[in-house]
Amino acid sequence: MSRLLGQMMQTPLTISSLIVHAARHAGDTEIVSKRAEGDLHRYTYRDAELRSRKVAQALARLGCEPGDRVGTLAWNGYRHFELYYGTSGSELVCHTINPRLFPEQITWIVNDAQDRVLCFDITFLPLVEKLAPHLPGVKHFVLMTDRAHMPAQSPIAGLLCYEEIVEAEDGQYAWPEFDENTASSICYTSGTTGNPKGAVYSHRSTVLHAFCAALPDSLGCSARDTILPVVPMFHVNAWGLPYACPLVGAKLVFPGPHLDGKSLFELFESEQVTFSAGVPTVWLGLLTHVQKNGLKFSTFKRTVIGGSACPPAMMDALEKDFGVEVIHAWGMTEMSPLGTVARLNSRNRHADPETRRRLHLKQGRAVYGVDMMVLDDKQQPLPWDGTTSGNLVVRGPWVIDAYFQQPESPLIEVEGRKWFPTGDVAAIDADGFMQITDRSKDVIKSGGEWISSIDIENIAMAHPAVHEAAAIACRHPKWDERPLLIVVPKPGASVTREELLTFFEGRIAKWQVPDDVIFVTELPHTATGKLLKLKLRDQFKDHLMAAG
Amino acid sequence: MSRLLGQMMQTPLTISSLIVHAARHAGDTEIVSKRAEGDLHRYTYRDAELRSRKVAQALARLGCEPGDRVGTLAWNGYRHFELYYGTSGSELVCHTINPRLFPEQITWIVNDAQDRVLCFDITFLPLVEKLAPHLPGVKHFVLMTDRAHMPAQSPIAGLLCYEEIVEAEDGQYAWPEFDENTASSICYTSGTTGNPKGAVYSHRSTVLHAFCAALPDSLGCSARDTILPVVPMFHVNAWGLPYACPLVGAKLVFPGPHLDGKSLFELFESEQVTFSAGVPTVWLGLLTHVQKNGLKFSTFKRTVIGGSACPPAMMDALEKDFGVEVIHAWGMTEMSPLGTVARLNSRNRHADPETRRRLHLKQGRAVYGVDMMVLDDKQQPLPWDGTTSGNLVVRGPWVIDAYFQQPESPLIEVEGRKWFPTGDVAAIDADGFMQITDRSKDVIKSGGEWISSIDIENIAMAHPAVHEAAAIACRHPKWDERPLLIVVPKPGASVTREELLTFFEGRIAKWQVPDDVIFVTELPHTATGKLLKLKLRDQFKDHLMAAG
Repeated sequence: MSRLLGQMMQTPLTISSLIVHAARHAGDTEIVSKRAEGDLHRYTYRDAELRSRKVAQALARLGCEPGDRVGTLAWNGYRHFELYYGTSGSELVCHTINPRLFPEQITWIVNDAQDRVLCFDITFLPLVEKLAPHLPGVKHFVLMTDRAHMPAQSPIAGLLCYEEIVEAEDGQYAWPEFDENTASSICYTSGTTGNPKGAVYSHRSTVLHAFCAALPDSLGCSARDTILPVVPMFHVNAWGLPYACPLVGAKLVFPGPHLDGKSLFELFESEQVTFSAGVPTVWLGLLTHVQKNGLKFSTFKRTVIGGSACPPAMMDALEKDFGVEVIHAWGMTEMSPLGTVARLNSRNRHADPETRRRLHLKQGRAVYGVDMMVLDDKQQPLPWDGTTSGNLVVRGPWVIDAYFQQPESPLIEVEGRKWFPTGDVAAIDADGFMQITDRSKDVIKSGGEWISSIDIENIAMAHPAVHEAAAIACRHPKWDERPLLIVVPKPGASVTREELLTFFEGRIAKWQVPDDVIFVTELPHTATGKLLKLKLRDQFKDHLMAAG
Repeated sequence: MSRLLGQMMQTPLTISSLIVHAARHAGDTEIVSKRAEGDLHRYTYRDAELRSRKVAQALARLGCEPGDRVGTLAWNGYRHFELYYGTSGSELVCHTINPRLFPEQITWIVNDAQDRVLCFDITFLPLVEKLAPHLPGVKHFVLMTDRAHMPAQSPIAGLLCYEEIVEAEDGQYAWPEFDENTASSICYTSGTTGNPKGAVYSHRSTVLHAFCAALPDSLGCSARDTILPVVPMFHVNAWGLPYACPLVGAKLVFPGPHLDGKSLFELFESEQVTFSAGVPTVWLGLLTHVQKNGLKFSTFKRTVIGGSACPPAMMDALEKDFGVEVIHAWGMTEMSPLGTVARLNSRNRHADPETRRRLHLKQGRAVYGVDMMVLDDKQQPLPWDGTTSGNLVVRGPWVIDAYFQQPESPLIEVEGRKWFPTGDVAAIDADGFMQITDRSKDVIKSGGEWISSIDIENIAMAHPAVHEAAAIACRHPKWDERPLLIVVPKPGASVTREELLTFFEGRIAKWQVPDDVIFVTELPHTATGKLLKLKLRDQFKDHLMAAG
């Protein structure tokens, strides 16, 4: 008998279908934005969908054609949201740019992506005015504001006003249907080595990821929620929330440029936010503000924390003192970003509080769609015993297959399938809870055993005299590599090499204790604040050879 | 610039990916089944995935090839679950058959689907022995039991034992990857007119539907849940739960053949079920049992009720007396089945209890993926005002495009898109809450205005002397159609035509009151218990002409 096809409607998973669904089935639900201009703006999904159609019309009028990239340098706000839909929905590619990168990186990224139009908030006008001469491919610069906030003059010839070009359109635009594998958006990684590389998302990957993000064991998004993404829309599409919220019809609150504790708390309270998402630094600011002022959240119940590991003390304070459930999640730009979420399952939901806390502090279980393994250096799968660490690899429909315009594939083949090497070192337990122990390039390989540089750093940071610490691998004649600790002492504090090495006793296996300590006045960082250990390794890799 | 494709991994949405995910990431999570043989069986997702691979091997050994249909006549249990995955996962088509149909309908369906293998629980051995001679296309009959429960002899030549053929395999089988639009399963509608028609689901539609079913505003499935689908696996794939549960890694409990209140209550308690799903009749039995015996549920917190509207009294009792949240859902075989779920949104979550109750009693809001409209008789869209009723049409990736082997399309074209006419009459309010008011073929069109036959029946049923009631359209010389009420009185009760008609006063608009009442001793029903109004219309359509 011949193969049989299903007889279901063929409706492509396009990004426009998300906003159309929200406009039709949650049309009166609000989107509230703190604007870069300073005031509060509110409208509905119905309004947003109409304005997104006008954005599509305006970009077409500027000469944009399917496949063209439109860059954005913008905070979380409704205009940025309209650009997400107006670009992708009309078969353009939304290229969100991280304004915190160094100016020369931004220039490089805009030119690599060949952005045809660049849209930006008024905050970034001085920056863009400086960069514009170096962006020959950008045909139109659009300031995301109204006529009243346009500068009297600008070195950018023909600077366009977003509100003017959008409101000049009539909205008589039908979202096109096309192949769901079409590119929808590009996000560049801010790697610690080499130039940034672009991840090119598709409509299909974005919609599937939005489904996954909204699930009860993922971010758990509902029409009953009011969701405030603190994580920036220029940072892996705000973890997918601008897509997941219309999918479920949740009320959206965009915080604009001010992410300090006071501004966030006031917005959480005035808009009755139930759920948020962001990196640990943001929650530290918010927590400090509410603690210092004796405040309580009246509606805020859950937050997703990702980007880097949530410090246990922060998780405890949010949960015990403020009743805010902390959902630990892990992902990467190359993964759209969602990979794992630390949610309990039916086997451990009744575990004792200490076990539950330990599980919640891990990066979590893989969501459906994502598969993962840990591999040894010979690319053999390692057991899921919670202790054996290896290189973490992943695969799934929202994991990249290639980087934009990079001919060499980042994937490796294991057991007949392609996997993306995350560059993380992790252990997975029998229940599937993954815990990252290090970055692959940072792990210290001593006599065939792996030592986590992060473990060493965390212990060093717990010493009262240490402001910042980095552990790196040094070449060693007998063990191949041995750990070296590099420390920035706290201002005014004094500590010796011997005191620090003694501090490790009982806190880590003896053979994992660093061989030496070097004191410095500062450590090198990337533009986004990550430690640049590569630079330290270049500088100190022969330190133990010399010492030995 | 040329069109740009996304650069994400191409991993098809196959049904096997669901069970593989569960085996890898929720491997120790249990599947517990009450067997047709009477005892309780428990194993894990890891076991289920291995056994599904053996099922795939066994079916291939029986000569099944991609596209072949495998019929099942079975209760909710782990072997049925393995067949779901063993068939679809190996590119066969799982054809679940409703054993409650008339034997001649089952014969017709098996032959129409050209089932090559028929697998059935021991409950259905007598039935299948009777039907076998009329099923020439079925090459193998497989009794879903072990050797000990096989009959000593059977009129079915070469009757196979499921456990024997499955355990003869070694499980060394790799799930194939193929086009996600491949047919995965078939389910026949039990229409009230003509022969049953088959809906052919695809892998893609099934996985997307599972995503949707698991969302917080749909059924809300989580790894922390223990889920007992009472809705049969032969009834639109148990509303997708056998797919959604592995997707999220929820513990599954299958109730087998005994769906009486006592059996269900004991299983709910012993397995700590948190969530269930079924038709109102089942909950009536369960509710009666717990009320009569003064019992309380210790873990049961939520249930989805669909199939037909949940009586308000049942919803109140479950919610107020037993703390069980009732989630009203609506769908069809042709929709996989999920269309709408009655979940509040952020605009009405704080509404007064009476408003919330009224919304919860509607069929609900469309889930993402499904779009809907109400149309007038000229196929023009009607307003969403909560009162204007029209023909309900739907579209989406898990809505059928055609019926199996039926050349004529069931779809209609409105505003340039294809829509599936549900055959229901409904009103949609401004918040997108849909409420079904009648079946299209049952609505009574009086002078251009529509009268709901269901409204009339509900009022009649509220009269203490009425056991069952049907309202049908009769031809009328002036108004085209006028309502006629047909009533089965309660045994021993007596009521007159005039008393009944008076009973409608104040309960319905005067012009909607039936023109006449006919008393009968019974009403005709389909095999699945639906009123056969078509037969009544044939019999009584000229009643008012004659009377007039």
